[in-house]
Amino acid sequence: SIISMNRIITIGREFGSGGRELGRRLSEKLNIAYYDQEIISEISKRTALSEEYIRRITESRPTVSFPIHIGRSFSPVPDPLVQQRISVYSEQNKLLHELADKSDCIIVGRCADYALAGRPGLLRIFCRADLTQRIKRIQQRHNLSLEKAALLVAKTDRHRRVYYHHHTGKFWGHSSCYDLTVNTSVLGVEKPAEALEAYIRAFQEQD
Amino acid sequence: SIISMNRIITIGREFGSGGRELGRRLSEKLNIAYYDQEIISEISKRTALSEEYIRRITESRPTVSFPIHIGRSFSPVPDPLVQQRISVYSEQNKLLHELADKSDCIIVGRCADYALAGRPGLLRIFCRADLTQRIKRIQQRHNLSLEKAALLVAKTDRHRRVYYHHHTGKFWGHSSCYDLTVNTSVLGVEKPAEALEAYIRAFQEQD
Repeated sequence: SIISMNRIITIGREFGSGGRELGRRLSEKLNIAYYDQEIISEISKRTALSEEYIRRITESRPTVSFPIHIGRSFSPVPDPLVQQRISVYSEQNKLLHELADKSDCIIVGRCADYALAGRPGLLRIFCRADLTQRIKRIQQRHNLSLEKAALLVAKTDRHRRVYYHHHTGKFWGHSSCYDLTVNTSVLGVEKPAEALEAYIRAFQEQD
Repeated sequence: SIISMNRIITIGREFGSGGRELGRRLSEKLNIAYYDQEIISEISKRTALSEEYIRRITESRPTVSFPIHIGRSFSPVPDPLVQQRISVYSEQNKLLHELADKSDCIIVGRCADYALAGRPGLLRIFCRADLTQRIKRIQQRHNLSLEKAALLVAKTDRHRRVYYHHHTGKFWGHSSCYDLTVNTSVLGVEKPAEALEAYIRAFQEQD
């Protein structure tokens, strides 16, 4: 098949770091497609599983739904829950490549940096922010106590870290997995978006 | 003491990634001081140790010069080599703060991101590039065989990783240690320097 030279920008992000906002602003500035929750909706349609369920299995620890075995079993017993996870993950990867084939776009989350790795025209961004600032943002967004917000941030980050490592074998947030990482605690989201716009335009014009 | 609000840009870098070149270009664009080898020369003057020796102990594994003990000793025997390492490291940290107090500047290497951590006006950059490209660059720069260049890159990176972790307890190259990381394999050094110039100017103008 012909590989398009679309420019695909993936954005991984710490919870509450403004990565989604960064993605949306970039898609407006560059006038290119933006995919985030749309991916879950589409997988839901294709697999006939609920969006809520897909969100849960793609954003939580993969081991949670593994059954508990007493003793050891060497026979390859296919676990329907594990099978379902695998088929959702592979459906997601197929969809990511379809989106990347269509046009230039921005994809938030979904381990897209890894799923599309090696594809020409890929730029992988990771968005982070200081923990205290992220907790404050989540506290305001969801109207939570400081304690509950801190717990939610810690849990969500842990889920993303475990999910990412499980599927990629690499370390979530390590600079070696990305082409650019940015801390939005320094200058917020708009300034990095402006700097990235110029950089990405140069990237789009590259042979 | 009064803490100046100078803008200090530290640049950590993988060997052969162009981090030093990025630092030099930024210092020219922004017209601010640039410190790299100058730091070693100054520590050499202050400690009366040779530049070569300082380079060796600040860029190699800290454990190399530890003496081998037979059995266990709980008495605090001061090891002169360990003491020397510690005094060079603390002299270096003192110097880094002096430079940061003087004026806006760019500091390459020296764990400066960690030494100056918490200081207002600090922006920590990490520069990386794909391994094959770094090996090629080192091969050309030092006129080496592919094998020798690959070994030199691997050894130098390992030394920097171990030195950084030893002194900071953190993971060299992890995005959580920096405000920006950039992969120069994507668009070289000049394009990131241009994007960073605008970003840093906004950072300099910030209250």
